[in-house]
Amino acid sequence: MRNALIAAIALSTGMLPSAVALADEGQWQPYQMPSIADKLSERGIDIPAKQLADLTSYPMNAVVGLGYCTASFVSPQGLVVTNHHCAYRAIQYNSKKEHNYLADGFLASSKDKEPSAGPNERLYITEAVTDVSEQVKKDIGEEPLKRYENIQANRKALIKECESDDNYRCSVRSFHNGLEYYLIKQLIIRDVRLVYAPPESAGSFGGDIDNYEYPRHSADFTFLRAYVGKDGKPAAFAEDNVPYVPKSYLKVNADGVKAGDGVFVAGYPGSTSRYRLTSELKFASDWLYPTLATRYQLRIDTIEAMSANDKDVKIKYAGTLAGMANRMKKYNGLLDGFKATDITGIKQSREDDFRAWLAKDAEYQSFQTQFDELETLLVEQRLQRQGRYYFNNAQSSELLATANKLYRLAKEKQKPDAEREEGYQERDMKMFKARLKRLDSSFAISVDKTLWMQDLEAYLAQDNRVAQLDSMLNEGDSDNEIGLSEKLDALYALSSLTDKNKRLAWMDADASEFETSADPFIRLAVALYEQNMQTEKDAKTLAGKLSKARPDYMKAVIAYNKANGWPVYPDANGTLRITYGMVDGYQSTDALYKQPFTRLEGILAKHTGVEPFNAPAKLLEAIEAKRYGSHAVETVYQDPASWLCRLFSCLDKPESFGSVPVNFLSSVDTTGGNSGSPVFNGKGELVGLNFDSTYEAITKDWFFNPTITRAVHVDIRYILWMMDEVDNAQNLIEELDLVNN
Amino acid sequence: MRNALIAAIALSTGMLPSAVALADEGQWQPYQMPSIADKLSERGIDIPAKQLADLTSYPMNAVVGLGYCTASFVSPQGLVVTNHHCAYRAIQYNSKKEHNYLADGFLASSKDKEPSAGPNERLYITEAVTDVSEQVKKDIGEEPLKRYENIQANRKALIKECESDDNYRCSVRSFHNGLEYYLIKQLIIRDVRLVYAPPESAGSFGGDIDNYEYPRHSADFTFLRAYVGKDGKPAAFAEDNVPYVPKSYLKVNADGVKAGDGVFVAGYPGSTSRYRLTSELKFASDWLYPTLATRYQLRIDTIEAMSANDKDVKIKYAGTLAGMANRMKKYNGLLDGFKATDITGIKQSREDDFRAWLAKDAEYQSFQTQFDELETLLVEQRLQRQGRYYFNNAQSSELLATANKLYRLAKEKQKPDAEREEGYQERDMKMFKARLKRLDSSFAISVDKTLWMQDLEAYLAQDNRVAQLDSMLNEGDSDNEIGLSEKLDALYALSSLTDKNKRLAWMDADASEFETSADPFIRLAVALYEQNMQTEKDAKTLAGKLSKARPDYMKAVIAYNKANGWPVYPDANGTLRITYGMVDGYQSTDALYKQPFTRLEGILAKHTGVEPFNAPAKLLEAIEAKRYGSHAVETVYQDPASWLCRLFSCLDKPESFGSVPVNFLSSVDTTGGNSGSPVFNGKGELVGLNFDSTYEAITKDWFFNPTITRAVHVDIRYILWMMDEVDNAQNLIEELDLVNN
Repeated sequence: MRNALIAAIALSTGMLPSAVALADEGQWQPYQMPSIADKLSERGIDIPAKQLADLTSYPMNAVVGLGYCTASFVSPQGLVVTNHHCAYRAIQYNSKKEHNYLADGFLASSKDKEPSAGPNERLYITEAVTDVSEQVKKDIGEEPLKRYENIQANRKALIKECESDDNYRCSVRSFHNGLEYYLIKQLIIRDVRLVYAPPESAGSFGGDIDNYEYPRHSADFTFLRAYVGKDGKPAAFAEDNVPYVPKSYLKVNADGVKAGDGVFVAGYPGSTSRYRLTSELKFASDWLYPTLATRYQLRIDTIEAMSANDKDVKIKYAGTLAGMANRMKKYNGLLDGFKATDITGIKQSREDDFRAWLAKDAEYQSFQTQFDELETLLVEQRLQRQGRYYFNNAQSSELLATANKLYRLAKEKQKPDAEREEGYQERDMKMFKARLKRLDSSFAISVDKTLWMQDLEAYLAQDNRVAQLDSMLNEGDSDNEIGLSEKLDALYALSSLTDKNKRLAWMDADASEFETSADPFIRLAVALYEQNMQTEKDAKTLAGKLSKARPDYMKAVIAYNKANGWPVYPDANGTLRITYGMVDGYQSTDALYKQPFTRLEGILAKHTGVEPFNAPAKLLEAIEAKRYGSHAVETVYQDPASWLCRLFSCLDKPESFGSVPVNFLSSVDTTGGNSGSPVFNGKGELVGLNFDSTYEAITKDWFFNPTITRAVHVDIRYILWMMDEVDNAQNLIEELDLVNN
Repeated sequence: MRNALIAAIALSTGMLPSAVALADEGQWQPYQMPSIADKLSERGIDIPAKQLADLTSYPMNAVVGLGYCTASFVSPQGLVVTNHHCAYRAIQYNSKKEHNYLADGFLASSKDKEPSAGPNERLYITEAVTDVSEQVKKDIGEEPLKRYENIQANRKALIKECESDDNYRCSVRSFHNGLEYYLIKQLIIRDVRLVYAPPESAGSFGGDIDNYEYPRHSADFTFLRAYVGKDGKPAAFAEDNVPYVPKSYLKVNADGVKAGDGVFVAGYPGSTSRYRLTSELKFASDWLYPTLATRYQLRIDTIEAMSANDKDVKIKYAGTLAGMANRMKKYNGLLDGFKATDITGIKQSREDDFRAWLAKDAEYQSFQTQFDELETLLVEQRLQRQGRYYFNNAQSSELLATANKLYRLAKEKQKPDAEREEGYQERDMKMFKARLKRLDSSFAISVDKTLWMQDLEAYLAQDNRVAQLDSMLNEGDSDNEIGLSEKLDALYALSSLTDKNKRLAWMDADASEFETSADPFIRLAVALYEQNMQTEKDAKTLAGKLSKARPDYMKAVIAYNKANGWPVYPDANGTLRITYGMVDGYQSTDALYKQPFTRLEGILAKHTGVEPFNAPAKLLEAIEAKRYGSHAVETVYQDPASWLCRLFSCLDKPESFGSVPVNFLSSVDTTGGNSGSPVFNGKGELVGLNFDSTYEAITKDWFFNPTITRAVHVDIRYILWMMDEVDNAQNLIEELDLVNN
């Protein structure tokens, strides 16, 4: 234990040889937990690893998915807690002119006052995860395109069988880049209701400015409730539905955690690229991200400029812009991170070592050739990506994208359902329609045209051209006299796709109707169809080749990692994972140490009254009056040396804190999709909600650097304090299973 | 000792009751040191306090002034070290097209290659500080204006007598707001030469962006040398002058300091307002600073916009802009600081306590009335300041200011030299002329006119008008048909003050020549003269009243402070002071701890190649090669708990550092003018140079908050490392008296 602590200190000062640096890394599949039982207990995580592996036991059966976020059950009456930003849509759905829950927050004083979170909100409870590698890879053959299509067909068949009970959503996910496949079976809760949300000014205090930053002061939590039919089975919203009784619900530890405590997080991380090859990282850092970032910044600047003078545009594109700002910050974080740490160099030297090992290892020697073959395929992949980049962008108009999808649907419908492309099957039609309907709310011709024209100009300025597109652009302008802008104006003027009902009607049209239509966007979609299909076919063929090469490579990498005693866990893929770590600050830059806990008073210091630093008055009042209730802590030992010191009793007066902890840092390994994930103490009790990670750590999707990688959590004491001292949510507190240390 | 350390920890976490919070405050007059001997030894400063009080002994006789900065002797051959930014003018003076020392740095390989720092560079060695309170206040009477004039006359007489030897510069400074006066006698070294300066890209690495910020990575040091005539007496530059042999020179401790070590700083802090009344602080924070900041920002924006399109303007106003940026950051720091901490509230509650004490104290009870009288005078002062604000600004044109000064000179010359206003005496004429000459290099009619017009428009938009100005502005425009801009154009077109020789010729003109001149700016100066003199007379009359009220107030405050056991030292006034403290980091904001030492690697991390983050290649190379020489340290104990821990041996492996320390923080009490000040360890050996303080601490001019007030120093190990590993300045290293711990 003592050595682990010393190591942790060394870690936090950022002066550690890279060998030790693998501590805490890993987004583990629950079944793997017994294999890392030693590490868990070293961190002070005492709940048996075997128990964590069991999806039907506490606490894992209390962890639920929202599709894009994570949540957890916290009462026997289906009460669920997640991030405010994960429940944003639900709060927005219920916000009207007469009661703006986004601005003012919401608290249902009793269950009958809990409104529906909206018809599209879902909770997903993972009930079973089954290895279906054999079934997916059965009889897929060697011919690349066939191989790809057979894998898809096998997956679809497994899903179809699994979804025979329509209370379940099923998916087949690839693990280790196609080495393994698992069938995930999730119960769908269809009646989700809004219970308690703080005002947005507290829930996302600091907004985009603080996004990815720390120190942080966010009340990023919201309570929802799962409802089912009277028979206890999932049902769509109905007045007389009853609260769902979950298999288990989390104990809530009102005492929270201290620096140095072990914690773990369960949730649905979306995607990482840790096992990608150095050449792939190089391509991403040298070409892909800079290229995407440049285009993104131009689009952001364009929309912002057009919003400044047009209120309608501003409202319609506000959501788009917020999403883009978040994405842009991620790109900048990636580029800054690659600059700050030579990740390519680190990966290259590990890969060199791997190659040397391959050459020496009797069992895996033959994989050297396969490694080379994979590299050759990756060259092909890069060429494909670069080759189709400008042409794909040249189809960025929302109307053209819509036309493309509608015509594709008509073509797919010519096949039996099972053979249709994913996204065009009967199971997808509800979402397809919803998206068509939604278009108007975030679309303005002026913006769409300006952005599209930027992409078209970039396309026209390079040589990799597609004849069908060029000829459509030149149509009726053989003398090349009409400017691009005027041409595009004519397209928009003549299209009926801006009309919602006409758009929806195209869902039922057959291919020949498209092929004879005079709508310019439909005509363009038809004209580009063959080229798009060819591009897709090329990509699928390559995917077919990779579906053999990548698993072979992963097999060797796994053997190599195991030989070195390094952790082996699959890249994130949106499936349920567990990650563990320690409450800890970090060395942000030279001489700048970020301490693990923030305090209520930090909100006062940041508050300016101007969005996004406009904390609600009731919150400010409670802080100013130092109305901490029972939620303040005297000491949290902010600095690594101080909590070590505590063990050796070297401080007469411990470091003082004297406030309610607001947010805290830990070294757990998370990524997008982990938002809302429960943070557990070593006994498996809820001590916080994960909601973000730090800017310096954005590159962790490619490489986990334990000295700077920290996840940011809402402290349970802040949530309880808000309920207790600010919002008087006693009814909910009584529902919780509160425990103390 | 142990309790002091614990207190220091509590301090550094920022959670301390304000009573303890007076530790380390104080810009002490050297003679006061024995009175704080206990505190010095508690901090581990072992050099006898009595020795520090003696200006003729080591180390104080090695401390010298530059007029606006501080420096110190470090070799028996007159070698002097100060900040790069203090020697900027000297480096600039020697920079030519063929050798740009600002860009490339400079190192004289031997003494005969040391160029003159310029004809105006001076070193001032304070040899005597004599209490002349009695002489200054002798027979000054009670009538306010007379009182003011008599004080000035007495001061001038003392100075004149003291300056009978023209190797000395003398001044009479007011202490405790006129309670005491001291005559300062300084030997003037007139031949100063440039010895060694790093490139500006290292010397002010981070530039304006990092100004007032921390973590910092600045090589803000430069070596100069004092030369005298062969007779050992001060002399103007001459080829065959010889190095000055100082009375003593500082030992240089190559091992530097650690966190928790006591340090002290000697230098010439310019001005503080710590004893000002709460009403004065309120006026400054609520009206004065916001008003000045608004005008300043407008002027900065204007000059920047005009520079963007005009290279000539850009060059001419670069220096002005840099100075304004620094000033603007100070204003913003003041306003942010007043927002962050309720200094007015703190001061008010102390003042309330002071009033309660006054009411009870037998000896000082009568001072209650005097306190009230002072407040009444301060109301008058505020009204005067606000009243003349717009009219003063309305004279902001550089040409009008020049005309004002020239006409004033002609009027002053009608009196005997001793009776003339300060700044217009014979002793001032050299500087007066130099300033007239310099004007062209930082003046463009377009900018001057635009800025002036902004001030005139603000003046015209309010009611407090001066008839003479209004009538000049309306001259020849009785129908009010000509726009202000056209009128100003005419003034500039007709003035000859833009011609340097004509400007200088006015120095010899008598008043009647001004009064019959047709030059529009001269005419304006003559027209406004009476009003300006009246304003000045009002201010002097008020100063005369205050010259009685303030010392009375201070008498009571000093008694009150002493009764409470609080430190009593005079506000800074540009005279030699000593301040002591401890090497220590600080809590910058919630959860953000700034550690006391920065590292070489921090330069690499900040380096972008783009000014001001463009470190020189030779520096980067040495860092990248980890060529630390003998200057690296393994441990510096960055965190307060860790250096406490060190005392109790609770860490098996101490916190690692493993680099050369670049800059460091201490809790000493400094302000502008302390730039270049030597930082001493407890034995009185040089361990660094003071060069800045932190943004959070800008309000310290009004109120010293020990939890956030830190000064920023260049670490001696960084200076020695640069000399040793980057610039091969072995010749200089050999001159130094290097010692080790």
